[in-house]
Amino acid sequence: MTDLSGLFDPDRIAVIGATDREGSVGRALLENLATFDGEIVPVNPNRETVLDADCYPSIEAAPNPTAIDLAVVAVPATVAVDVVRQVGEQGIKNVVVITAGFSETDAEGRRRERELAAVAAEYDLDLVGPNSVGVISTATGLNGTFLEGRPPEGSLSLLSQSGAFIAAVIGWATQHNIGFNDVVSLGNETVLDEVDFLYEWDDDPGTDVILAYVEDIDEGRAFIETARDVTASTPVVVIKSGRTEAGAAAAKSHTGSMAGSDDAYDAAFEQAGVIRAEDIQDVFDFGQVLAGQPRPDGDNVAVVTNGGGPGVLTTDAVGDSSLDLAEFGVETRTALDELLPAAADSTNPLDIIGDADLARFEAALDTVLADKGVDGAVVLSVPTALYEFAALAETIGDLQAEHGTPVVACLMGGEPADRAADTLAQYGIPNYFDPSRAVASLETLADYGAVLDRAYEPPAEFEVDRKRASEILAQTDDRDVDYLGVEAMALLDAYGIPTPPGELVESPEAAAAVAERIGGPVVMKIASPEIVHKSDIGGVEVGVPTDAVADTYRTILDRARSHAPETSLLGVRVEGLVDPAESTETIIGAKRDPQFGHLLMFGLGGIFVQIYEDTAFRIAPVSEHEARAMTDEIRAAPMLRGTRGRTPADIDRIVETIQRVSQLLTDFPAITELDINPLVVSPEGVSAIDVRVRVDTADLSPPD
Amino acid sequence: MTDLSGLFDPDRIAVIGATDREGSVGRALLENLATFDGEIVPVNPNRETVLDADCYPSIEAAPNPTAIDLAVVAVPATVAVDVVRQVGEQGIKNVVVITAGFSETDAEGRRRERELAAVAAEYDLDLVGPNSVGVISTATGLNGTFLEGRPPEGSLSLLSQSGAFIAAVIGWATQHNIGFNDVVSLGNETVLDEVDFLYEWDDDPGTDVILAYVEDIDEGRAFIETARDVTASTPVVVIKSGRTEAGAAAAKSHTGSMAGSDDAYDAAFEQAGVIRAEDIQDVFDFGQVLAGQPRPDGDNVAVVTNGGGPGVLTTDAVGDSSLDLAEFGVETRTALDELLPAAADSTNPLDIIGDADLARFEAALDTVLADKGVDGAVVLSVPTALYEFAALAETIGDLQAEHGTPVVACLMGGEPADRAADTLAQYGIPNYFDPSRAVASLETLADYGAVLDRAYEPPAEFEVDRKRASEILAQTDDRDVDYLGVEAMALLDAYGIPTPPGELVESPEAAAAVAERIGGPVVMKIASPEIVHKSDIGGVEVGVPTDAVADTYRTILDRARSHAPETSLLGVRVEGLVDPAESTETIIGAKRDPQFGHLLMFGLGGIFVQIYEDTAFRIAPVSEHEARAMTDEIRAAPMLRGTRGRTPADIDRIVETIQRVSQLLTDFPAITELDINPLVVSPEGVSAIDVRVRVDTADLSPPD
Repeated sequence: MTDLSGLFDPDRIAVIGATDREGSVGRALLENLATFDGEIVPVNPNRETVLDADCYPSIEAAPNPTAIDLAVVAVPATVAVDVVRQVGEQGIKNVVVITAGFSETDAEGRRRERELAAVAAEYDLDLVGPNSVGVISTATGLNGTFLEGRPPEGSLSLLSQSGAFIAAVIGWATQHNIGFNDVVSLGNETVLDEVDFLYEWDDDPGTDVILAYVEDIDEGRAFIETARDVTASTPVVVIKSGRTEAGAAAAKSHTGSMAGSDDAYDAAFEQAGVIRAEDIQDVFDFGQVLAGQPRPDGDNVAVVTNGGGPGVLTTDAVGDSSLDLAEFGVETRTALDELLPAAADSTNPLDIIGDADLARFEAALDTVLADKGVDGAVVLSVPTALYEFAALAETIGDLQAEHGTPVVACLMGGEPADRAADTLAQYGIPNYFDPSRAVASLETLADYGAVLDRAYEPPAEFEVDRKRASEILAQTDDRDVDYLGVEAMALLDAYGIPTPPGELVESPEAAAAVAERIGGPVVMKIASPEIVHKSDIGGVEVGVPTDAVADTYRTILDRARSHAPETSLLGVRVEGLVDPAESTETIIGAKRDPQFGHLLMFGLGGIFVQIYEDTAFRIAPVSEHEARAMTDEIRAAPMLRGTRGRTPADIDRIVETIQRVSQLLTDFPAITELDINPLVVSPEGVSAIDVRVRVDTADLSPPD
Repeated sequence: MTDLSGLFDPDRIAVIGATDREGSVGRALLENLATFDGEIVPVNPNRETVLDADCYPSIEAAPNPTAIDLAVVAVPATVAVDVVRQVGEQGIKNVVVITAGFSETDAEGRRRERELAAVAAEYDLDLVGPNSVGVISTATGLNGTFLEGRPPEGSLSLLSQSGAFIAAVIGWATQHNIGFNDVVSLGNETVLDEVDFLYEWDDDPGTDVILAYVEDIDEGRAFIETARDVTASTPVVVIKSGRTEAGAAAAKSHTGSMAGSDDAYDAAFEQAGVIRAEDIQDVFDFGQVLAGQPRPDGDNVAVVTNGGGPGVLTTDAVGDSSLDLAEFGVETRTALDELLPAAADSTNPLDIIGDADLARFEAALDTVLADKGVDGAVVLSVPTALYEFAALAETIGDLQAEHGTPVVACLMGGEPADRAADTLAQYGIPNYFDPSRAVASLETLADYGAVLDRAYEPPAEFEVDRKRASEILAQTDDRDVDYLGVEAMALLDAYGIPTPPGELVESPEAAAAVAERIGGPVVMKIASPEIVHKSDIGGVEVGVPTDAVADTYRTILDRARSHAPETSLLGVRVEGLVDPAESTETIIGAKRDPQFGHLLMFGLGGIFVQIYEDTAFRIAPVSEHEARAMTDEIRAAPMLRGTRGRTPADIDRIVETIQRVSQLLTDFPAITELDINPLVVSPEGVSAIDVRVRVDTADLSPPD
């Protein structure tokens, strides 16, 4: 991996395009860099000095140019590529191109960006931008942006595909005392992108949590693999915009890039251990709590409050979350009964009631945090005449440090609460007015704890008949359409996915023979890649007795011809009737995503997918663990696991089938769509009843 | 309705329990009341002066006691009832009892509260509390609470069943400039409750929006009727805690009251036009926008921004909401194309790009708000060197006032954004850092607009055989169990709810005769209120040919006897086989809720209810409009309306059936549970295939 520390920790910085013209980017840069620890070297061919400092006409004219660590480029677009070349010629590796007017504009801009990429490649530059608002490193006082204000020092590092996002956040972060380590505006990502900074910051002791605003991720697979590595030691919180259809359209018009489907992003983030935030507030709430509080050992939280109402609201938020309300142990309850007044219950949520003084609060919280069954706590207080929030904040901080259990606070009120929040922040404890945010933060700690508990497990490799699969897929090569219909049943068979016994035949006699061999009654289905809804045209007959098979063959073919005379008919598939007791119809589907590769889907059939969207997604290849998680996370999972006396379905075989499909997709990137619908699952196993495959024939490699 | 203005706009206030003892409630009250416009009369038998004012030993000893308008009582619980009696004797009507130690404590407290209720009734007192933290009226400078701080003046009025909630909110509201008119802490609600204040504030010109924190609503029906009236002119926003199972348990332990199911509250709020907030932030966000901005004409919103990323995030929030992104008209787009630089698109979300100055922002926003297809707008800006937020705030305010279209703002940043927010607030425009809150606020405006568009429609009255129904229900009177099984099919029939033709018979011969009359094959079901899952014991046979009916009768009865020898068997119901083409199984259910009466449920059967919880609830009686809404709002509604070539189900008959069930429940409050499961619906109509009814026999009135 490239070492990018020169971007954030340089000794000497050249500002190319330095100027003292009011309102210019070059001047704003210089002013922001005034706080930088090291040396600033202004470069501008039209000035001898800027802001009373010597200015050099070019980078090579600067003193000792090869010893410059970072060049920030803010020159007109027309000369930017030349300037970057000059930087490269001096052996300077780190470049931030603020200049806009590249691929975000027009054809001329796209051409210019290709030139920039070539120059960067030639000199092996670590280049941020172009069209970046710059980089910030609070530790070195480096504010290489033209934005107003600078964020406070801290341990969050932020990357953003939107400069406006950074502009919006800085002032607000300052006001809310949200501290940053490094910040980078990625701009057009000609060279460096989100993946590079994930690695950089994972290794950076100054960064506790990585935050990211992204609109699209070009290198989906690289992102998943990098992020999976990184999140094993450093939490990553991402806000991905363009979630909704409207948002995706807006993002496309904004960045010109076509983002993959949001289901793919969701799956990728899940598989990579990335925590996804839905709104801006959450990004920073989650970042702060992950930076400040330890991982909980479990999901059981305590609520300690001096006000009943807010305690109930907090309990509701716990009920809405994946967390549970801890049940206090007997010892805890006995101790609480002793220290609380008679009117207070020693149950969770623990309302120590409005007349609590600081001593009671401290004793109660101490007791609760000592309970081994308490994995985290929300501490609430409404204002009271009996103690100052500032004192309570110290008590909470000390007790958290003593017990090591994660704690978040809701000291609810105005200015005094804000002052107490500053105290709590020194202990790494976030404070919220709204209990729902406090609970969401604790939930995020638990979510990240679950990420840390994961062990990465490579996908299994099954023995399959890859050659046969390759031949079947090649059939599409000389066809008008790129679909395979029931003739793809053999493809599943080649990958060890159970299908009913059967065969594709091309004559009534052959059909009868197959039926005889299988034993009737049988199912007969027209085989034509152009007939998508076979049943709608009478192309499927179920339960055909052996002696009617030949006639039925003719009938089905006649129907198909009268429905679509032009259609290429491959014959009829004759197969055994699958109708096990207690069966359920499921679907395994896949679609090739432009960013992430194959997106696998598992769910129940029909209305469950269409109306209830009860589906689970993963990016292929999937491990056994991931395949199993897909069967667990659909809402209908209890149905598969057996409810009200039903025998459970053979989940192991479903899990294996998902993995085999995953292997098929990975082996054949040319597959753009695949639908096994239905996959009938029962206590006896699984059986793929119908399949449809779409292939990008241009991508097909010749059979091995 | 009682006129409660004396509580908020008195001329003279007696403070009973006035004292200058540091840290006491009596002293905090006096200090808070120092800002009051009128006269304060301290009462305390143990003091001659308090805080340098004359103090009177009793209310009757005070000068001109009958001319006191409001008594605030903060005396020990042991003397509180006597003190309130003395207040009543002087003819003072308005009383706020701060004193705690009533029903929230123990048996003695509950006895005390009954006495207080009796005294209040004797003197016809408008009494708040006991166990209240007090009342506030900012217009008259009246802060009759013992809480620290006071909220700024404004047009929100707040009622709360939690004093702690008020304590938490006051300082925070001050800091965020959220202005209140009246605030009341309801305490134990011995006399006045939420319903009283809804009416009071609806008539109060100083109140634009009513906010409420509630944990339970005792008089559910009265609340619905009052709130329905009130919301037709004044928006009501409620946060109801105890939403989740854990929260409800916490609320119960906190207030001692058993709240109804959350589904009942949801239904009641929906029917009453009350807007439900999920967290504290929302309560005030929604309150402020409803107080400050007009109702939109529709759901189409525009997004205008100088930053692409935040614009996409906003568009995502719109996509998540019930709002739509407006499509700009041709005129609008032409005008925008003219005034924007070439790099900017004239589409919604409108990104006027980062180099926009104030003139461009103004022109763009003016153009967008002039578009008749734009019903509301979110205006975003990230900080820029090109204009001050303060100036933009005025521009936004002026344009909103000029066009009359509702606008919310996201001027995103730190201190400058806060100052701009103050300016925007003067125009009634809320400002948010997070776009998702801005969109939620616009959505609330649209939601309330829909409430205003409703016309209340009384439930229909169908002609039914009430006498027969009464007789059927009375059957439970002499039974061990309070259930009716298939014998309740006749109950449905009495209320005009379609059931298959059939009859309950008590012999094989009678069964055969019924089958002969109906025409076979028939369905036969054991009739026993004690056999809940009839199929599980072989108590149901479907498709019995006419000639096998007598034998099947004997078989079914044998099975039932062998399964449960003690069970009372009423015979067998023989009915026609209902299996229309394109049928769907639905459920109509009902449960009597302790607060609201009968809660009606409609949904699809089986897994759809159990796993997907795809159900719609309303409190009975329902109007035709409400019944129709139930069929509309389940997620499976498209299935009923016909998808992929399916003929639509007979929705009108479903709607009528829901109304008929509603009438049955309203006519017989003794029914505690009712389940029509399944109600088979098809293009041809509906048919109730099975029913189970539970009756509170103690509530049964004799047949008319």
